[in-house]
Amino acid sequence: MAVQTAETSTNPTDAAVDLGPATALSCRECGHRVPLGPVFACEECFGPLEIAYDFSAYDAEELRKRIEAGPANIWRYAPLLPVPADVATKPNINPGWTKLVQADNLARELGVTGGLYVKDDSGNPTHSFKDRVVAQAIEAARAFGFTTLSCSSTGNLAGAVGAAAARAGFRSCVFIPHDLEQGKVVMAAVYGGELVGIEGNYDDVNRFCSELIGDPAGEGWGFVNVNLRPYYAEGSKTLAYEICEQLGWRLPDQIVVPIASGSQLTKIDKGLKELIELGLVEDRPYKIFGAQAEGCSPVSTAYKAGHDVVRPQKPNTIAKSLAIGNPADGPYVLDIARRTGGAVEDVTDEQVVDAIKLLARTEGIFAETAGGVTVGVTRKLIENGVLDPSLTTVVLNTGDGLKTLDAVAGIGLTATIRPNLDSFREAGLA
Amino acid sequence: MAVQTAETSTNPTDAAVDLGPATALSCRECGHRVPLGPVFACEECFGPLEIAYDFSAYDAEELRKRIEAGPANIWRYAPLLPVPADVATKPNINPGWTKLVQADNLARELGVTGGLYVKDDSGNPTHSFKDRVVAQAIEAARAFGFTTLSCSSTGNLAGAVGAAAARAGFRSCVFIPHDLEQGKVVMAAVYGGELVGIEGNYDDVNRFCSELIGDPAGEGWGFVNVNLRPYYAEGSKTLAYEICEQLGWRLPDQIVVPIASGSQLTKIDKGLKELIELGLVEDRPYKIFGAQAEGCSPVSTAYKAGHDVVRPQKPNTIAKSLAIGNPADGPYVLDIARRTGGAVEDVTDEQVVDAIKLLARTEGIFAETAGGVTVGVTRKLIENGVLDPSLTTVVLNTGDGLKTLDAVAGIGLTATIRPNLDSFREAGLA
Repeated sequence: MAVQTAETSTNPTDAAVDLGPATALSCRECGHRVPLGPVFACEECFGPLEIAYDFSAYDAEELRKRIEAGPANIWRYAPLLPVPADVATKPNINPGWTKLVQADNLARELGVTGGLYVKDDSGNPTHSFKDRVVAQAIEAARAFGFTTLSCSSTGNLAGAVGAAAARAGFRSCVFIPHDLEQGKVVMAAVYGGELVGIEGNYDDVNRFCSELIGDPAGEGWGFVNVNLRPYYAEGSKTLAYEICEQLGWRLPDQIVVPIASGSQLTKIDKGLKELIELGLVEDRPYKIFGAQAEGCSPVSTAYKAGHDVVRPQKPNTIAKSLAIGNPADGPYVLDIARRTGGAVEDVTDEQVVDAIKLLARTEGIFAETAGGVTVGVTRKLIENGVLDPSLTTVVLNTGDGLKTLDAVAGIGLTATIRPNLDSFREAGLA
Repeated sequence: MAVQTAETSTNPTDAAVDLGPATALSCRECGHRVPLGPVFACEECFGPLEIAYDFSAYDAEELRKRIEAGPANIWRYAPLLPVPADVATKPNINPGWTKLVQADNLARELGVTGGLYVKDDSGNPTHSFKDRVVAQAIEAARAFGFTTLSCSSTGNLAGAVGAAAARAGFRSCVFIPHDLEQGKVVMAAVYGGELVGIEGNYDDVNRFCSELIGDPAGEGWGFVNVNLRPYYAEGSKTLAYEICEQLGWRLPDQIVVPIASGSQLTKIDKGLKELIELGLVEDRPYKIFGAQAEGCSPVSTAYKAGHDVVRPQKPNTIAKSLAIGNPADGPYVLDIARRTGGAVEDVTDEQVVDAIKLLARTEGIFAETAGGVTVGVTRKLIENGVLDPSLTTVVLNTGDGLKTLDAVAGIGLTATIRPNLDSFREAGLA
């Protein structure tokens, strides 16, 4: 993908922007700083740009009260995000503050005694965690004067962008492979934005978007996961904030996170660290575990081999929303897993399906395949003695089973009977 | 359906039950009272039994504070529901506290100037309002010592019962027509309970359940919408409570509610009246409007004809979740619409689809067909001068578009292009 740096910015305005506590963009590799703008790569070293904040004025107790008095969505954390202070008054999809389910039934099955929780992001407006990141991108797009929102997608992201753009009053133009399943097309198209099929595969779609972003035709377009990526990615921090607040302003001991690009895991780590630095939670160790499907396990493979570098793979798994063969943040994930004492593990597609059923049967939560990956990996890590069942553990479910029905299509009726009691008794149901 | 009265109760325990402020069951027709138990029809007149409460000890200001300090789900209203005071500590699916979306874009399209809100119940755990009523039934089942939860269903209810039973530790056995679409079967079966296909149509399924409930084989079974119906139905009151609290403890002027059995509409009216009587909202008029699909419009037809009696119809509409041809609470709905100055209206299937698209395009909410019915009816009532656009109006969306994808299957790509800028420009997308 073509790299866009501060110098080649398509920012339609160079005026100072109000993004609350965000002060600049800072390179994760070399630390070089540039002003806030729609750029994502360092002009010095081409490293990824991240948001830098000024949190120095915050008093822990006041901040905690301000958060607790805030709305029941991610904007309760506005003081810690790259958004203006009045963000909650602007039209947005307002995701977040999803349930942290105390999963006692699942804990019994897995032998977890220290408390097991499922952070269930299927409760978001379009039923995936993507609503969190898109909501952030929307506010950045507004600040930079963009009028069209765009992305390349194979599913969840297309719907999240379509819905958020509709609510927030942006035009949207989303690019997908032309031969996507009809159900996914409907879910993305129903919001009325432009939905363009590209004759090619997902890589072709991505390449086309890179071309468009450097062309005058893309002027005024915010690509949520490209030129707005530094802002977009910060949305994942809210998962960390919510988990800690919902635990009573307490860090979990262990947290199991799915890995696609790896961005979510790195931002959860960032969020936890911020809460410690701000004094909102006690400063004590936590472990972050990464979860992949065996059919797309570049990070897990590198972790097990002791490598610092992630070798790309060609994905082949039912966990389509995690199927990124060359994850941009893979090396950072390896670093975090090792630094915190966590690990990266993978499970087979069969184990993913088993875990989806296990979570549904024990907790009444119907997870997307990505949720099957995290629950399956949690089970495997306990069996292997890597994850300590006596510690408080949080497992992420980032999507909804209704979007990946094919994965469990084999499930059906337990019996078929005639409409009378004799038939009922014969079936052994009494 | 066979009528079960207090005398033929299959209550496994006759001990006094703790269901909080609920004191008895009272007949809506003749006022006859019986103790709380798993019965649904009056032994005197066969009228429907409703929960009677003792709210006399409540102080308005204290109650408001207690509610506001409660959990972000329906149990914040435990003092007003037939549940024990410690209900929030028990395993349950914990639905509710869904978003009340300020629908400014939709308001502009419809010409509403007094404030338009969508109460979006697709945010519930299994993405329909059924989670509210099932969560209530679960607590009644627990109080009465039932160990199996059951129902007849064609979709939403089966999933809600399966999920809630799994979380709450009940066995579930749900009956559906054997030839239901595979997608709906998967959504209901994934929770691991018994899912029994009945060789016959939905009426056959219902008749079989009535037989089972009077048979020893059904001993210890709680049928959420039959012998637990008085408790189950109260769950819909929480929609009224949430709407008022989310409006800042204010009554809406107008509210548009879908009609299936009509129960939901009557319970919303009951909830609003309770809030007035308790002093939690100002005592002033509100109007309740009922919404049906033309292909199943027995209540709307009776309303327009000026009848008090509802003549059954044979349903033929895409709004399957509203397709009850002989709605039990139809006469009560007529009474409420007339008493409050509301109305009952219907829209065609084409208008339902248009309204689904309108809501998605303006607010980023992808509604089930039932949501298309309420939005479509709202538009029609405004056009006909029946609903006053200068008043605060709340429209209910009770389900999720992901469950009725077929209704909008015609929606697709807006363009298909080759992966290059020339093709992009040719398509007029720049």
